[in-house]
Amino acid sequence: MDRTALAARDADDPILRRERFELPDALVYLDGNSLGPPARRAQERVTSMLAAWRDDQISAWNRAGWVHLADETAARIAPLLGADRGEVAVTDSTSVDLFQTLVAACRARPDRPVLLIEQDGFPTDRYVAEAVASLLGRSVRQVPRDTLTQTVDDDVAVVTAAHVDYRSGHRLDAVALGRAARGAGAMTVWDLAHTTGALDVDLHAWDADFAVGCTYKFLNGGPGAPGYVYVAGGLDPEATIRGWWGHGQPFAFSTGWEPAAGAARFRNGSPPILAMQPLLAALDVFDGVAPRTLQERATALTTLFIDLVDERIGDAVEVASPRDAALRGAQVSLRHPSAYAVMQALIDRGVIGDHRPPDLLRFGFAPLHTRWTDVWDGIETLRHILASGVWEQDRYAARNEVP
Amino acid sequence: MDRTALAARDADDPILRRERFELPDALVYLDGNSLGPPARRAQERVTSMLAAWRDDQISAWNRAGWVHLADETAARIAPLLGADRGEVAVTDSTSVDLFQTLVAACRARPDRPVLLIEQDGFPTDRYVAEAVASLLGRSVRQVPRDTLTQTVDDDVAVVTAAHVDYRSGHRLDAVALGRAARGAGAMTVWDLAHTTGALDVDLHAWDADFAVGCTYKFLNGGPGAPGYVYVAGGLDPEATIRGWWGHGQPFAFSTGWEPAAGAARFRNGSPPILAMQPLLAALDVFDGVAPRTLQERATALTTLFIDLVDERIGDAVEVASPRDAALRGAQVSLRHPSAYAVMQALIDRGVIGDHRPPDLLRFGFAPLHTRWTDVWDGIETLRHILASGVWEQDRYAARNEVP
Repeated sequence: MDRTALAARDADDPILRRERFELPDALVYLDGNSLGPPARRAQERVTSMLAAWRDDQISAWNRAGWVHLADETAARIAPLLGADRGEVAVTDSTSVDLFQTLVAACRARPDRPVLLIEQDGFPTDRYVAEAVASLLGRSVRQVPRDTLTQTVDDDVAVVTAAHVDYRSGHRLDAVALGRAARGAGAMTVWDLAHTTGALDVDLHAWDADFAVGCTYKFLNGGPGAPGYVYVAGGLDPEATIRGWWGHGQPFAFSTGWEPAAGAARFRNGSPPILAMQPLLAALDVFDGVAPRTLQERATALTTLFIDLVDERIGDAVEVASPRDAALRGAQVSLRHPSAYAVMQALIDRGVIGDHRPPDLLRFGFAPLHTRWTDVWDGIETLRHILASGVWEQDRYAARNEVP
Repeated sequence: MDRTALAARDADDPILRRERFELPDALVYLDGNSLGPPARRAQERVTSMLAAWRDDQISAWNRAGWVHLADETAARIAPLLGADRGEVAVTDSTSVDLFQTLVAACRARPDRPVLLIEQDGFPTDRYVAEAVASLLGRSVRQVPRDTLTQTVDDDVAVVTAAHVDYRSGHRLDAVALGRAARGAGAMTVWDLAHTTGALDVDLHAWDADFAVGCTYKFLNGGPGAPGYVYVAGGLDPEATIRGWWGHGQPFAFSTGWEPAAGAARFRNGSPPILAMQPLLAALDVFDGVAPRTLQERATALTTLFIDLVDERIGDAVEVASPRDAALRGAQVSLRHPSAYAVMQALIDRGVIGDHRPPDLLRFGFAPLHTRWTDVWDGIETLRHILASGVWEQDRYAARNEVP
């Protein structure tokens, strides 16, 4: 295995479509799990939306089809979740969507006191679960994520977890957890922030009740792009916030609340028309690629990365992600005591990953734009930095940037 | 009073800055209370933001200052509310912001059973109040908006109302209601959707506890642009949703929830960086214009409009907005039994207002871009339509567009 062989694989790869994203050729971008790059046609879509606003003003809601845009965006995301279009709504942020669905799940299980969460999950997921527990007079039970399946019992109203952990990249067995939750009569709410667009998702097969996720990571929607909600068909949950865009007939301005069918009841304010444009441009790039295919390529990339760590870097770092590919997302984290400084040195050399405190170097492998040679070049740059000790220079340690 | 005199006033108006918005010269745009036009520099800001994303990818959060953008936007809106910068956060939608603040207000008054709302307010405000009541085991009391001040008593946890009614344009005496609420020990949550950017607001003088509003009407932020929250300084409300961007140190990824100071605790997900660009471009246009000055010009425009209705149209329509300028927002509604068809005929002739069921023609008067001649031309076009009966043609009645 050498760089020349990998360059040949890049040239011949049936899935790789880096040229449809805005990424400088020299950049080794392994941070699509934090902020995906813009699709090349994002600017064009944005400019066209601004022109419709300028030319048609308020009438653009009809003439430019803005009234249907949230529905259309949801319909484009649904296949990436193994969902039907009415089961998905694009709205708000992941945090708000998690709040809405956790409340709805708890209310569907009025006599069960517990929200079951993972012990070291993404802070928002914990904060929001605690906020919901505090509002509804329930309690939060925290357990290690690999024991959720054994722990869910008939005290549990809802179990919520990130399918892929933001630090380690550990991937849960969603079918097993879904089956255990359903068996115990508990609802499930999945956080798919680090999953959708990179891994195989089949929410029907997972027995999922709800799921939420963001669109600015592997879906390339742009910074602060809207989140989405999945509601299993057949559920008829109470809407939590009841904003007018979640009404079945928002423009009737009726005094009585009548929720829209399916997931759309969790929409609230007017949809963010501008913010959906880069997302729609990016969703075009996913056309014709099945989630299973995304996962196969992501797995091959992470496997190569770990193999090259072992082969070319060795003990200077520790692989903090599962070595079993079935337990891993589209991400590999490496442990190093000075992870922050090492990552700054990498970034200075055009290899972009990120750092999660205290000691993790985090690398994401987006299946549509990560080249085989990016894996090679990232490893070689890291090897050089570690071998030379250049990361010990003050200019790396002294930076204090938001990761 | 004739068109020539009004054209001379346009040429000499110290506040009018229509040339800084994207509005075709021939368009009579009286719908800035529904969707404001884009600022001329919106496209430039958007393109620049997309370039930062493309050039710097994840690093743009620091290099392009995205991490501070929500704070900066809030600081730009604060003076339009008579607020200090830490009292305002730009986040989510008006609906979600109303939900968050109503929950917080109720929790600050744990022993009071009632949310006091106006009887015929904007549907979302009612739906959301009912959602909050249902969640917290409180009840909603509805009264006519002009009796809120007399009705607030010590059963009331929170009183919430639109400062300006979306249909009639009726403006509440905010000082009186604020004083009555504070006297009764009730919290206040103002909906400023139809106020900010067109009228004088002084939330300190109003004794307001909370306020929310949208930025796509008189603030010209674009369709679905984010909302904002005001939290009076000195209040230390519980955050409702607890998303990570409302944490005091979001990038510490700490397990314990510590709210940010002030209004920022009501932020939830990552801020919508793209969606804030047109808003920031528009806020530049407000620079140097005091809210009081905005209100003076809006009042003069609505007064002229009503005078011209009386003088040139007469009984063919009924003025459905208060004739007392002190009770009126920057909007005039006219009642006509076929309001929908009449509005369609107006739109066909380049006069843009909107329709609210069943029988209202609604016209907004944005102080920074509505010309004196727009008032004249709007009235003349309406007069022609009503006199000719052209609105009775099937092509107007048959349309079924979202207003």
